[in-house]
Amino acid sequence: MSKGKVIVLLSGGMDSLVTAAIAGSEAYELYTLHINYGQRTEKRELKSFNDISDHYRAAKRFIVDMKYLSQIGGSSLTDYSIPVTSYNPESTGIPVSYVPFRNANILSVAVSWAEICNAGKIFIGAVEEDSSGYPDCREVFYNAFNRVIELGTKPETFIEVVTPLIHMKKHEIVKKGLELKAPFEISWSCYKSEDIACGECDSCYLRLKGFHEAGVEDPIPYKTKPEFTLIH
Amino acid sequence: MSKGKVIVLLSGGMDSLVTAAIAGSEAYELYTLHINYGQRTEKRELKSFNDISDHYRAAKRFIVDMKYLSQIGGSSLTDYSIPVTSYNPESTGIPVSYVPFRNANILSVAVSWAEICNAGKIFIGAVEEDSSGYPDCREVFYNAFNRVIELGTKPETFIEVVTPLIHMKKHEIVKKGLELKAPFEISWSCYKSEDIACGECDSCYLRLKGFHEAGVEDPIPYKTKPEFTLIH
Repeated sequence: MSKGKVIVLLSGGMDSLVTAAIAGSEAYELYTLHINYGQRTEKRELKSFNDISDHYRAAKRFIVDMKYLSQIGGSSLTDYSIPVTSYNPESTGIPVSYVPFRNANILSVAVSWAEICNAGKIFIGAVEEDSSGYPDCREVFYNAFNRVIELGTKPETFIEVVTPLIHMKKHEIVKKGLELKAPFEISWSCYKSEDIACGECDSCYLRLKGFHEAGVEDPIPYKTKPEFTLIH
Repeated sequence: MSKGKVIVLLSGGMDSLVTAAIAGSEAYELYTLHINYGQRTEKRELKSFNDISDHYRAAKRFIVDMKYLSQIGGSSLTDYSIPVTSYNPESTGIPVSYVPFRNANILSVAVSWAEICNAGKIFIGAVEEDSSGYPDCREVFYNAFNRVIELGTKPETFIEVVTPLIHMKKHEIVKKGLELKAPFEISWSCYKSEDIACGECDSCYLRLKGFHEAGVEDPIPYKTKPEFTLIH
């Protein structure tokens, strides 16, 4: 029996796939939400979104057009004049792929939808430590956002953002996904390419590192793969 | 000399007009932002937005398409199957014109834009007491949102939402606008009509009550006007 409706934010990448797997395993009825913000790999992400929504038999799915984030620009994901950089272990600070305040925009529309369809939770696959260092992927940000939800919706509304992966390392996310039989082969993480994953951008690097440290092979093909020192 | 860039959220209504007048009088360089969320009176509001932006010589203006709020629906402003109700002094609770979590969506895009164009403040004409009772028009909501901004943007970014009208009564807003020579005749507040303001919806009622209590005539024409008991 369903424990009620929840919204799952689903970019189509590995983290959102495992988040959907967790929500599905907890017997919630899934409402999947995808944001098109003009990112380079949108077409490919959208296919993954639909495949994952099919796999988990989403009760409803909603694709939101948020192209104003690419009109605003300032990120290599949405402004095609800024190149997607290859992973650099020595780089510090917030990477050029950071889309200004993106997750607040995404959560806001999720809350608007949740308030109308009576969903009590919003699942998002944000990862804090083992990630690119975006400020809007930290637990403190989600805690503060939950306070905004409490104050900015009707008094009878109770909606909470939940972040089941927030303190997981990438290899733990891979293991969790394997444990829940998440179909990694239909997910898409690459920031740069839509046909074969580049294997070089931050997102490919972190995904491949996760699979490597989990001691399993990523089922999707790559143009190139980084060398990892053997750790298992 | 300019004190720096600020974003002014400008629906085109009386409150946002006076907010622009305040920001303009404080010698900020104005970046005006208008949201099209599929509301009934969008065309008329857009004209007011442009007229007010011209009047205050906005350095930049940005019109954001947020039609997903009308796809989500649930409000008489965006869902045309829900009628716009006439003002009823006995009604309690949150009115049907409430657009779920609208102001969080609007502030989020404003912050994204502010982060890219280095604006330090976002002016919004929210009014707490003398208003329709929307949860996202309360000072506590804006304080909580400022915390989200602090945590969800780059560490070197400082952006603050400011709400100069939040504790004003409607007649005080009218007086403030008159003092700053705000051109009320180019603003538009009606929720229902785009040619002549209806004079019956919550928004017309609150505006007319403000003018009445300030003891001045609203310069825009109305189809009908409510009867007010003489108080001045």
